[in-house]
Amino acid sequence: MPPGLKDVAARAGVSIKTVSNVVNGYVHVAPATRARVQAAIEALGYVPNMAARQLRSGRSGVIALAVPELQSPYFAEIAGLIVQAAEQRSWTVLIDQTDGQAERERNLVAGLRRHAIDGLIFSPLALAGEELAVESGTPMVLLGERVWHGPADHVAIDNTAASADATRHLTSLGRRRIAAIGVQDRPSAVTAHQRLAGFRSVLAEAGLQGREARVESFHRADGAAAMARLLDEGEPPDAVFCFNDLLALGAIRTLLERGLSVPGDVAVIGFDDIEDGRFSTPTLSTIAPDAPRIAQLAVDLLAERLGDGPAAGGAPRELRVDHRLVVRESTSA
Amino acid sequence: MPPGLKDVAARAGVSIKTVSNVVNGYVHVAPATRARVQAAIEALGYVPNMAARQLRSGRSGVIALAVPELQSPYFAEIAGLIVQAAEQRSWTVLIDQTDGQAERERNLVAGLRRHAIDGLIFSPLALAGEELAVESGTPMVLLGERVWHGPADHVAIDNTAASADATRHLTSLGRRRIAAIGVQDRPSAVTAHQRLAGFRSVLAEAGLQGREARVESFHRADGAAAMARLLDEGEPPDAVFCFNDLLALGAIRTLLERGLSVPGDVAVIGFDDIEDGRFSTPTLSTIAPDAPRIAQLAVDLLAERLGDGPAAGGAPRELRVDHRLVVRESTSA
Repeated sequence: MPPGLKDVAARAGVSIKTVSNVVNGYVHVAPATRARVQAAIEALGYVPNMAARQLRSGRSGVIALAVPELQSPYFAEIAGLIVQAAEQRSWTVLIDQTDGQAERERNLVAGLRRHAIDGLIFSPLALAGEELAVESGTPMVLLGERVWHGPADHVAIDNTAASADATRHLTSLGRRRIAAIGVQDRPSAVTAHQRLAGFRSVLAEAGLQGREARVESFHRADGAAAMARLLDEGEPPDAVFCFNDLLALGAIRTLLERGLSVPGDVAVIGFDDIEDGRFSTPTLSTIAPDAPRIAQLAVDLLAERLGDGPAAGGAPRELRVDHRLVVRESTSA
Repeated sequence: MPPGLKDVAARAGVSIKTVSNVVNGYVHVAPATRARVQAAIEALGYVPNMAARQLRSGRSGVIALAVPELQSPYFAEIAGLIVQAAEQRSWTVLIDQTDGQAERERNLVAGLRRHAIDGLIFSPLALAGEELAVESGTPMVLLGERVWHGPADHVAIDNTAASADATRHLTSLGRRRIAAIGVQDRPSAVTAHQRLAGFRSVLAEAGLQGREARVESFHRADGAAAMARLLDEGEPPDAVFCFNDLLALGAIRTLLERGLSVPGDVAVIGFDDIEDGRFSTPTLSTIAPDAPRIAQLAVDLLAERLGDGPAAGGAPRELRVDHRLVVRESTSA
């Protein structure tokens, strides 16, 4: 007969209830006790029967993380940080890539998969507001700028203020012909709208008229193409705020190809602080969200909703995370 | 009463068996039929009871993908491609980040989580050979260079030949003071050993003596530091083969910082063909593995092992995927 909870408890010298707490990933087990139970589990080769356990407890020990795309370095970094934070609670993270498609995001919140997961950390791209209400009641934490005062706990930076900081950095350098790359027209493109609002507010303060370049998506190729259009359609700007780092890296590529210098002729700043920008030539100035804090808060909030904390049933909470301006070669002399 | 299989079948005008095939993600359902069933599922709000289904069928519809780190663009790209390939079979992919730690890889293959997954696609970093045998019998497909003729189906490029191609490209440019960045001493660093073997074989053919720089890991910062050491310790090389693109991007950053030109003074080639290298300045020459093919084969092989194909029970198979040399600015005049 395969070993059971009782055998693990006997070997670890703890109660069956304690073994159960460890197996179910509850956090209120002392680290030393948890280690002893895990050693016993490994020594005996004990395997919890997940299906039976799920039927009994209603908890699978699995949470889902849904992001638009893993190929985006920012989301890959957030995903890695959330996996690490969840690991501390012995949670397994199922990562879902929505490609920002409304239908796949809708399936997600409609709970078609809720049977397999205890909770969801979700960075939506296509849906907003009440569309995000999870009918099944599965606990959810939202990331990103799309929803304030929505149906669930929400962790984000102040996107408009951060964009204003980036733009103000460019005006503070004495640049006057300032362009934005990353404008998107569709109403659901909230990130782009907020970053544009921050850009416009600072230009209005400074009495400047900015140029604005549209993009289809936020990848390097979009930034490269948008920069080429700006150069083809008039006098080159002397500074560009790109709505993420990938756009900025693409824009810099085009500028250097055209024989312009960065930052001499054109200063460029991005947004996200992905690692690429720390080793590019020139290195990339950017806005750095506090990504480790975002990941930790997302996991902690979800844990509270799952009953491990005081706020299991309260109203949705809004948590704002800090950002900072990082000045590197692409905007400094 | 919530809608059941029967209600979905009636609405879609198909048999209960067909609905069951769709829900279980079997591939031998005609696309039009599948679409009709899915429309009925959505219209009725039918939710399969996963726990009960798993107990009954022994299949959860979930596979695991274990990669060393999502923050590595190469693994993020592979993960995204595998999620897409699995989506075609209605599989959910649980992504596990092992950080290349032997203990976490061992837990994985020991099947501590096998209760929740039907199969595993695994790119190991720490384990090799028989250590990778999955005791639980969970079907597994291995990726990467660590295991040939191991205990499971295996998909990889010919790593040593690809490295020889990269090095031969440098000698064909007339470069003679050639260095490698990415050497690792520990026996488990199979990727590094194979890439070094390819490098050495071509230098031996050409009667050249190469310099070899060690790294702790394969990140940009390691490449930057290794390049600095090569420059500090002797005459600059006139060409460098870096064992991945991140190392190469770090190395180029150091070269440009020191006032050397790329490729004028030093030609640089990487390995992986990540997107970063297509927009860096200079753009990065590299070896491109056929990543979409790797992802598709991994999913297809796993599906066969899961009984959707003819080879459900056969001996482990070795599939070699093509690679190609991509010449960009970092090695061309």
